[in-house]
Amino acid sequence: MVRRGARRKPTKTEEDPPDPHFVPITRPYPPMAVLTEDQVDEVHRLSLRILADIGLEFMAPQTWPILEEAGCAVDHDTGMVRFPPAAVDHYLSLAPAQFNMVARDPAKTVFFGGDNIVYGSASSAPNVLDADRGRRPGTGDTFQDLVKLNHLIPSSHVFCGHPVEPIDWPANTRHLDSVYNWLTLSDKVFRLYAIGETRAQDGLAMIEIGHGISREQLREAPRTYTVFNVNSPLKIDEPLLLGSMELAKNNQAVVVSPVAFSGAMSPITQGGSLIQHNAESIGVIAFLQMFAPGSPVFYGSLVTPVDMKSGAPAMGVPETITGTIAAGQMARRYNLPQRIMLGSTSNAVDAQAAYETLMSIWSGYLSGAHLVHHGHGWMEGGLTTGYEKTVLDADLIQMMAALEPTIDLSDAEEAIDAIASVGPGGHFLGSAHTMSRYQTAFHTPKLSDWRPYEFWEDAGSPDTAQRANALWKEMLANYQRPPIDPAIDNALQEYVAKRKLEIGDQEI
Amino acid sequence: MVRRGARRKPTKTEEDPPDPHFVPITRPYPPMAVLTEDQVDEVHRLSLRILADIGLEFMAPQTWPILEEAGCAVDHDTGMVRFPPAAVDHYLSLAPAQFNMVARDPAKTVFFGGDNIVYGSASSAPNVLDADRGRRPGTGDTFQDLVKLNHLIPSSHVFCGHPVEPIDWPANTRHLDSVYNWLTLSDKVFRLYAIGETRAQDGLAMIEIGHGISREQLREAPRTYTVFNVNSPLKIDEPLLLGSMELAKNNQAVVVSPVAFSGAMSPITQGGSLIQHNAESIGVIAFLQMFAPGSPVFYGSLVTPVDMKSGAPAMGVPETITGTIAAGQMARRYNLPQRIMLGSTSNAVDAQAAYETLMSIWSGYLSGAHLVHHGHGWMEGGLTTGYEKTVLDADLIQMMAALEPTIDLSDAEEAIDAIASVGPGGHFLGSAHTMSRYQTAFHTPKLSDWRPYEFWEDAGSPDTAQRANALWKEMLANYQRPPIDPAIDNALQEYVAKRKLEIGDQEI
Repeated sequence: MVRRGARRKPTKTEEDPPDPHFVPITRPYPPMAVLTEDQVDEVHRLSLRILADIGLEFMAPQTWPILEEAGCAVDHDTGMVRFPPAAVDHYLSLAPAQFNMVARDPAKTVFFGGDNIVYGSASSAPNVLDADRGRRPGTGDTFQDLVKLNHLIPSSHVFCGHPVEPIDWPANTRHLDSVYNWLTLSDKVFRLYAIGETRAQDGLAMIEIGHGISREQLREAPRTYTVFNVNSPLKIDEPLLLGSMELAKNNQAVVVSPVAFSGAMSPITQGGSLIQHNAESIGVIAFLQMFAPGSPVFYGSLVTPVDMKSGAPAMGVPETITGTIAAGQMARRYNLPQRIMLGSTSNAVDAQAAYETLMSIWSGYLSGAHLVHHGHGWMEGGLTTGYEKTVLDADLIQMMAALEPTIDLSDAEEAIDAIASVGPGGHFLGSAHTMSRYQTAFHTPKLSDWRPYEFWEDAGSPDTAQRANALWKEMLANYQRPPIDPAIDNALQEYVAKRKLEIGDQEI
Repeated sequence: MVRRGARRKPTKTEEDPPDPHFVPITRPYPPMAVLTEDQVDEVHRLSLRILADIGLEFMAPQTWPILEEAGCAVDHDTGMVRFPPAAVDHYLSLAPAQFNMVARDPAKTVFFGGDNIVYGSASSAPNVLDADRGRRPGTGDTFQDLVKLNHLIPSSHVFCGHPVEPIDWPANTRHLDSVYNWLTLSDKVFRLYAIGETRAQDGLAMIEIGHGISREQLREAPRTYTVFNVNSPLKIDEPLLLGSMELAKNNQAVVVSPVAFSGAMSPITQGGSLIQHNAESIGVIAFLQMFAPGSPVFYGSLVTPVDMKSGAPAMGVPETITGTIAAGQMARRYNLPQRIMLGSTSNAVDAQAAYETLMSIWSGYLSGAHLVHHGHGWMEGGLTTGYEKTVLDADLIQMMAALEPTIDLSDAEEAIDAIASVGPGGHFLGSAHTMSRYQTAFHTPKLSDWRPYEFWEDAGSPDTAQRANALWKEMLANYQRPPIDPAIDNALQEYVAKRKLEIGDQEI
């Protein structure tokens, strides 16, 4: 079970000093299985049956000729599309198994494939929470704070969307402001909200300016992505699909993410939910490959139950782990990178916040996930992003990243010498073997307080949330804007100003 | 990787209704590996070299003839014992690979082997903490509270020792009171503190009375166990070893547990620490098998670092997981059940308490552990047992216990019918498929609060620790003493009274 040659924190061994704000993470363990190989095939077969017999409802008539060209039967009254199994299999096979996504700072380029796990920021939460100011609607300044914070966090590799919604920025031009902020407050990859073609086109144009590249260069490699949410069950909405197609035709990536909360948007049984989820995923992925063959996609699994009392999605529960592992097996069957989600339903930065989040982190480690959404800060099932929660999650992820796939026995002789010289009942605290290694021997979580009780009490008995409050303040106080060519910054500002004038008060 | 035929929550399928206060737990996943098979052999070979060339210091001269008889070289001036490798291999092979431990209530008998994980109470903490009364030294009444609480918790299968030290009970007769309380406030298995032969003999005598059995029947199957802590490095203290021998010769189990905190009591490198730990473990286990061939033992791994700033042991850190997995591989090489530890260093019932504990629970799931010590309530690195932490840990363990090894696809046809009838954009909340299953479909953690923020705020914004406070009070209020034959209770009381008279003020 020990795997050799896994990519493991590659920056450590390279010659350049590692960027403290970006450290790649690899899984030390092979993925788990909860389905037999026969069951994987059965889920695929039953999914094909759903696509052939029930079908998916495509709301956008522009898509129908593409589907028909590929052999699908489209009902022009209802938009119901039935897929021939052979076509699904064929188009699925065109999507790439792995790919890079190029950041403005090329050193922050992310790789989706193999043992790599890419974590991202929280996204799309309407509320923001910190211990000083409480819970309140998200704003532009809190959006900027959280962009800065995620920029500084080495395990936050990409922005999965607005870390919090800047609701004081007008909705019809918000995408221009958020892309400008991502491009200038950070130099990491970010996701576009491709709600309709216009937003997608603006986002791609600004990435070209920000990265200093042409449209042809953009098409050479993915530099951004979007999320296509299936309106589960079986419904494929128009604006999100048109935006996703705009990205796909420019060789940018699409996460295909059915919102299959078991019991609400999909059958309550894990098996039934998985089959629907898989049918929706491969149906939309097949469509994107009909439209833009070879364009990068993610198998965006989200198989988790809803709380049957409140109707709210549960997170970090045992079923999240089982469902995510099963989805990972399906993603591997299709040779696609897997996107999962991380988060907590907790209203406070407390034990529940930690255990739900850590359980969902483990779901990615055991499923073999490649992209982990909402990795830093999600609370309340995604309704709130917390400042303290953001740095707590960073600590949890970095703790997991410190898991080593092997134990090094190469210094065994030295260790045995140390044992012999310390002798029965002695201690190693001051030994040469210890002194030469103690500073780097172990991973030290930033938020863990290992002081004796009395010292901790004298310091005011700060709990983890209070320590997290001090940590994010210290981090933000030391934030520095990453370098950007002033001409590029100007060009971005000009683009934003021009487009704001053009858009005016229009709904887009 | 999916394993068939694993023992999985066996009570669910048996005819008797399951005891709500005792639910067996099995691991759904196969154990992980961080050592190659070659490295496992290398650790063994290097351990044999330590035992042959450096040796272990046995403080008790009574043990020397036994060791010499088995071929060891004993230095009668220093007590240093050097073990011939062939003898270690031979005696190691005599220990049983798996065994039951019989409880006073036979339905609460625990099995150590296979995929089973047995969790226990906290043990030996000098302090106790609850949200109402704060942190204070342990007492007899808090000992009794925590015995009752662990008796009620279905995932607390055994008492790993005093859940908290009852320091108001005189030290020289405390063992009589604690055994009496375990036997009468609960009917689960408990561990004896075999500090010297007298305490061990009293414990065994009281178990015979409590279980209504003879000495011969006691010797037929393990009903209790003790922990032998190696005074690492390399030192084998006298009183604990004599007590352990008393158990071993009566076919009761011994956990052999080097206290190998990397950097303090063993080399700072994980490899060096593992080798010393393994040498100490197999040396003592070999000795116990020389003395009592075939007596049950545990490979009691504890390979975790100390915080190099405070000297306090770290818990639930990445190195705990790696070290525990490696120790699990060694235990499997020797065909022995593995004992691990669970706990947190946190001073509060906060996020740190949850993430450290959950990380250590995962270490057992990934290592293939069989007995998990301090499973319920340890905080502050074992200096305090918390009431709230006890029920928090129960929730964490029961969440893990709800992980299923497979996904059931048997109702796929029904699920597809439900998908077809709900149709695009509909929902499953009220569907017949959902309604017939929603009450048992998902595991619901007792402490997770999934209410919308506003409802939670109206309820006073209780965090997990506050909810845990309410839960343990409710549990204790509903505690009922398990049935016991009044004649047996009388006999136990008489034994305690007689022995207290005999012991008087003596140190034992």
